[in-house]
Amino acid sequence: MNNNQNGFTPGLEGVVAAQTRLSRVDGQRGELIIGGFPLAELAGNATFEETAFLLWNGRLPTQPELSAFQDELAQLRPLPAATLTLLQAAAQQQAPPMDALRMAAGTLSLDIGESDTQQTAKAVTARFSTVVTAYWRFLQGKTAVSPDPTLTHAANYLYMLTGAPPSEAQTRGLETYLNTVVDHGLNASTFAARVIIATQSDMVSAIVGAVGALKGPLHGGAPGPALDMVFEIGTADRAETFLRQKLERGERLMGFGHRVYKVRDPRAEVLSAAAESLFTADGDMALYTLAKEVEQTAVSLLDTYKPGRNLQTNVEFYTALLLHGLGLNTSLFTPTFAIGRVAGWIAHCFEQIANGRLIRPQSTYIGETGREWQAVEMRTG
Amino acid sequence: MNNNQNGFTPGLEGVVAAQTRLSRVDGQRGELIIGGFPLAELAGNATFEETAFLLWNGRLPTQPELSAFQDELAQLRPLPAATLTLLQAAAQQQAPPMDALRMAAGTLSLDIGESDTQQTAKAVTARFSTVVTAYWRFLQGKTAVSPDPTLTHAANYLYMLTGAPPSEAQTRGLETYLNTVVDHGLNASTFAARVIIATQSDMVSAIVGAVGALKGPLHGGAPGPALDMVFEIGTADRAETFLRQKLERGERLMGFGHRVYKVRDPRAEVLSAAAESLFTADGDMALYTLAKEVEQTAVSLLDTYKPGRNLQTNVEFYTALLLHGLGLNTSLFTPTFAIGRVAGWIAHCFEQIANGRLIRPQSTYIGETGREWQAVEMRTG
Repeated sequence: MNNNQNGFTPGLEGVVAAQTRLSRVDGQRGELIIGGFPLAELAGNATFEETAFLLWNGRLPTQPELSAFQDELAQLRPLPAATLTLLQAAAQQQAPPMDALRMAAGTLSLDIGESDTQQTAKAVTARFSTVVTAYWRFLQGKTAVSPDPTLTHAANYLYMLTGAPPSEAQTRGLETYLNTVVDHGLNASTFAARVIIATQSDMVSAIVGAVGALKGPLHGGAPGPALDMVFEIGTADRAETFLRQKLERGERLMGFGHRVYKVRDPRAEVLSAAAESLFTADGDMALYTLAKEVEQTAVSLLDTYKPGRNLQTNVEFYTALLLHGLGLNTSLFTPTFAIGRVAGWIAHCFEQIANGRLIRPQSTYIGETGREWQAVEMRTG
Repeated sequence: MNNNQNGFTPGLEGVVAAQTRLSRVDGQRGELIIGGFPLAELAGNATFEETAFLLWNGRLPTQPELSAFQDELAQLRPLPAATLTLLQAAAQQQAPPMDALRMAAGTLSLDIGESDTQQTAKAVTARFSTVVTAYWRFLQGKTAVSPDPTLTHAANYLYMLTGAPPSEAQTRGLETYLNTVVDHGLNASTFAARVIIATQSDMVSAIVGAVGALKGPLHGGAPGPALDMVFEIGTADRAETFLRQKLERGERLMGFGHRVYKVRDPRAEVLSAAAESLFTADGDMALYTLAKEVEQTAVSLLDTYKPGRNLQTNVEFYTALLLHGLGLNTSLFTPTFAIGRVAGWIAHCFEQIANGRLIRPQSTYIGETGREWQAVEMRTG
């Protein structure tokens, strides 16, 4: 091996490393299929529990199956004591929420062991939102809010964050967001999870690796800046001048353009509709209107300044608007992404376990050979 | 993307995913080069600190550089308080040592943050042995032994495990083992680390993912059974009959044969010599002699029963003998492997950071499309 049977493929670009029934990303056509459903058909209809069940089982649950699944998640939602202690220690160091989530994620099977994969899958999914909300409150010097077993997963997240039960529109808004980001082909965190579980390691190990990958700016991204720009613009009449100046200076407009989607990101469509519903029912409609106007102006100017690039609004723009509308601080955006994506990671783990094959590419050696040992006194650096 | 530009490559077999100056594995010729040195030239001469420095810097350290590096590791070796608390909680649950190492690894930068990559690299390397030894003692109901700043990394490991300073032969034996396993091309744990750090995530995230991958039986393996067989045989005169019966029953002989090495694994050679030195100086020479005789009989019988397969002694056989000779319990074998390999993981992270490119292969969708939403009451399962 390592003898250059094939050339080096930087970034494994274009290499197909998995077959999956979980999602299809078609960047040319701007289509995303999740568990057989076009995104728009699933995201606004399903509860997060239904989506997780769909990905793990290949079909939506019946009513009794859904109730049983909800009950199991409710029972698993409270955290092991050691996890809470660790989160408190991390909060004393003011560790960023994604670091705290990664630390805590590694401990989530402490009370159930790592051999029961089904139970681990449910515990990890249920507990991600408990971890993120408890940690956020510890960072503010508050105590954690215990999960309410009568609330759905999405409603619980907002409840544990604030201590107040969310409105229906808020729950629906978060539910749609979580469904929208639950899976997206073989992205880097999902791939990391598959590489780890493919050694026949346990699911917690795979999920912790995936959280670590999602932390990276090249993956989890930074949905904050897109909204910061909207705030900076302030009023719709300033949008064109502001954006034009930015483009003249050669600056990038955050929230537009995507490596994969050559037409509008289907997730942006779904999240835009979700944001509209949320802000109409519950929020600051002026902000929503401003964001829409900034978006239209930006897309139109990008077409002028970067002709032929077809730079459309990406998922980060409406993620920021929707999550801000739900009252989430910017530093909770990537952890909230993880709360959705974890169900996808787990589904990929199940697929990879069924496949049963080690993922083990090659490297090519480009270093020296035949060095000879020299005692430390003889070395000159 | 995901449109099947290329066929699916199961396990990424034969795909070259990285160029590296760290190690070259030549399975056909039975050669392993580490940092430019043939394994046999490096493993028995270098301290572990020298090997880590070599991989991280591309050359061996001068005397002042080595002293400075040893001092830095010595200062970083004690664990953050939160890590110790977590290990105590894990010990109460009797979590396996690799699970505990993964949990603790995620917390190792709690006191230094995750932005200083050089400092993190040193802290993680220094602390892996502190974690494993403290945890092992907690599992026995003992207290941790604080690291001794005057001892080398290898000597500290044995010291913190037992509370007694090791002999020179013991330290040399462990040093040779750690050098031997420090790097081995793009194995699954190293690849996991590269996938994670390639998102521009932090080094702790990458290392935690690698520990998770190493946990898997398809990777970290189980060096225990090879030695269990030697114990079961008991005396040399029973070897042939025992092994013949096992082969007649179609059973696999643990410790022989390797997926990559078609001739004798060069690591087995080095570890065999290290075991001989250790047992000659310090140990039960009868066990060593028995193991050698079992090995010779096994290789000869495998040639008869599996002609043309060229099944040679692999790294697990002599790993088991050497680590047993050092007084390590079987359940410490894979964690001790990690204590060596972590320096290689870190070196690969440095290489991947310098490369700066996301590792993001594709998946092919083989699921349904165009499903339509159905309310839960209508579903029949």
